[in-house]
Amino acid sequence: MSGVEVTGRLLYASSEACADLWYEAGFPTTDEFLWYAVGEQRGIVINVMELARAQAECRSGLDVLTPREAAARWGVVEERPGISDLIVALTRHCGVTTWQVPANFPFALAKILLDKGLVLASVPHFCPSRAVKTAQEIEWLREGVQLAEAGLRRAEQVLRESVIDAAGMVCWQGAVLTAELLRGEINAEVARHGGTASHTITAPGTQGASPHCEGSGPIAANAPIVLDIFPRCDRTGYYGDLTRTLVKGRAPDCVRRAFASVQRAQREALAMLAAGVIAKAVHERVEAVFAEDGYVTVFEPGPARGFFHSTGHGVGLDIHEYPGLNLRNDAPLVTGNVVTIEPGLYYPEWGGIRIEDVAVITDAGAENLTTAPVYLEIP
Amino acid sequence: MSGVEVTGRLLYASSEACADLWYEAGFPTTDEFLWYAVGEQRGIVINVMELARAQAECRSGLDVLTPREAAARWGVVEERPGISDLIVALTRHCGVTTWQVPANFPFALAKILLDKGLVLASVPHFCPSRAVKTAQEIEWLREGVQLAEAGLRRAEQVLRESVIDAAGMVCWQGAVLTAELLRGEINAEVARHGGTASHTITAPGTQGASPHCEGSGPIAANAPIVLDIFPRCDRTGYYGDLTRTLVKGRAPDCVRRAFASVQRAQREALAMLAAGVIAKAVHERVEAVFAEDGYVTVFEPGPARGFFHSTGHGVGLDIHEYPGLNLRNDAPLVTGNVVTIEPGLYYPEWGGIRIEDVAVITDAGAENLTTAPVYLEIP
Repeated sequence: MSGVEVTGRLLYASSEACADLWYEAGFPTTDEFLWYAVGEQRGIVINVMELARAQAECRSGLDVLTPREAAARWGVVEERPGISDLIVALTRHCGVTTWQVPANFPFALAKILLDKGLVLASVPHFCPSRAVKTAQEIEWLREGVQLAEAGLRRAEQVLRESVIDAAGMVCWQGAVLTAELLRGEINAEVARHGGTASHTITAPGTQGASPHCEGSGPIAANAPIVLDIFPRCDRTGYYGDLTRTLVKGRAPDCVRRAFASVQRAQREALAMLAAGVIAKAVHERVEAVFAEDGYVTVFEPGPARGFFHSTGHGVGLDIHEYPGLNLRNDAPLVTGNVVTIEPGLYYPEWGGIRIEDVAVITDAGAENLTTAPVYLEIP
Repeated sequence: MSGVEVTGRLLYASSEACADLWYEAGFPTTDEFLWYAVGEQRGIVINVMELARAQAECRSGLDVLTPREAAARWGVVEERPGISDLIVALTRHCGVTTWQVPANFPFALAKILLDKGLVLASVPHFCPSRAVKTAQEIEWLREGVQLAEAGLRRAEQVLRESVIDAAGMVCWQGAVLTAELLRGEINAEVARHGGTASHTITAPGTQGASPHCEGSGPIAANAPIVLDIFPRCDRTGYYGDLTRTLVKGRAPDCVRRAFASVQRAQREALAMLAAGVIAKAVHERVEAVFAEDGYVTVFEPGPARGFFHSTGHGVGLDIHEYPGLNLRNDAPLVTGNVVTIEPGLYYPEWGGIRIEDVAVITDAGAENLTTAPVYLEIP
């Protein structure tokens, strides 16, 4: 046996918290369990409480074992084996010389395994195939986008029902509408459709100038509200991601012009998507549109102005995954990649505009999974 | 300097995903950042996008640095330093000989640090003080429980509005009520109140016999529905946890008897809580009540029957944290512990009964943070 290199792959996490594990095992848990792959063998070791669900929902071809069954099969000698004892026995049983683990593999377990003489190698992309979605995954992502669109429709309804008071504030159901109330209505609608939305952005006015600001306080009329909704489907684990920017009332000219430029940048980026296109080139196209329209990005002094985030990111079982559409990514897009296209313009004087769709790359171009209309004003 | 032992503490995570980091830094992020403590010095290194929020929301006494500022302060020589370069420079700057890290510290980063000669020691309870809640934390936990109670009230309303059809099914708004619909209504109400609920259990009939089963499909009348709601407050990060079991219509005698026993077990467990009481003793009291009432726990063959989970767990920035109320915990409860008390009985023939409150341990006894009434039937 000496000299034979056998590389296995190992995960230990809750699949709810670890997208690689949900992908490989096929079902969500909040409790940790073990997944391994050595050659054609793939299996999980999971506690008895989760056993029935694992057997019913796991990916085909997986061996589902309880700790007791695993201990018997792999010849564990310890009376009450811990997870590290099981892994050591599995290593011996399969002759594994190196275990590949993801970057976020828990250090405490890794340390025990290293101290017992195992070799662990962390790999940056543990499941490269996650970037290339199957037809089933694309349908799940479409459902994710539909969850987000349900949330957006609720926000549009609230804003349509609202009136503008004498002080220029947006009023709904007899009280001033706040960012928190609007977020609650969006997230409630997502929940009602079987998804979980958190950190939904409802950033009114100048708050929208900071792309990560979630938004708080009263919403003024005649100013942009950035609505960025990225729910996860409770059943499948796949995300949707959607941004629209709306104004209750009438937008100032500077906001209309920025909106038109972002809309054009987004359309041009979507139009150039196809297998073989370099990811970075999509980002550069967006930058070029903004430059043509006279929007210059300035990083300092003070808060950044203009366009200063990436154009998009892959989306799947993680909200941000490979491939990114940014200056660092020189790789070509491939059929089955699913990416967001979300250019934006941000100015502390009046706020932000961002428009975001999710599209799947095809041989011929791209299919936009988003159906929500793009417009600015709600009278 | 040789021979001087300096132990520091180190976290690298997103505070959204790492309760220790939310606790130490005081604010949520979805992006990773660095937190360190050496002697009296405590600080974070966070990217520019999150800087303003970090400065506004972080715990007092924390140094908030950008990577560039940290590099200048600690004498980093690399042109574009990575996070490991910053940590190496910090180690040298503060003369740290050992870094304590939590069990879930990411292996890939740990490996780089170890290869650069740093010493890392993982500790099982990274923030022991998390188990002893401050007055502020207790208020945040009360708000968490109130979020769960809002969800429960919505479920009660739906069940009150429902009718029983000729086939014995629960009907709401003209259609058979399903576990998914009921869960959606609960989670929507939680969202509307500023919380996020996921994996809410709405387990009808025999599905409730499996404590982890989330529930699916049509809900029948005259059978128990286990409702377990554990939302997180979006603003504070603290959880609530609440379980009630309800029957639409009339419960069979076996269900009523089990309900009465679970209610008695829960009351007796709550009544004995106080600083100094051994955690295990609370669990044993629950077991004793069930034994007195003739409920015997059987683990095999087939699915477990009776009472086969722990009586409760600590709750805070994690839904399950120290201290557990189970046979393995010989430690005394202390003032400021916040724990769930959630006995249950489970029988595959008819389902499950569980009743759960959250209580804070005081010198004299305990304060129950839960106000939801305990009853079984909704006519």
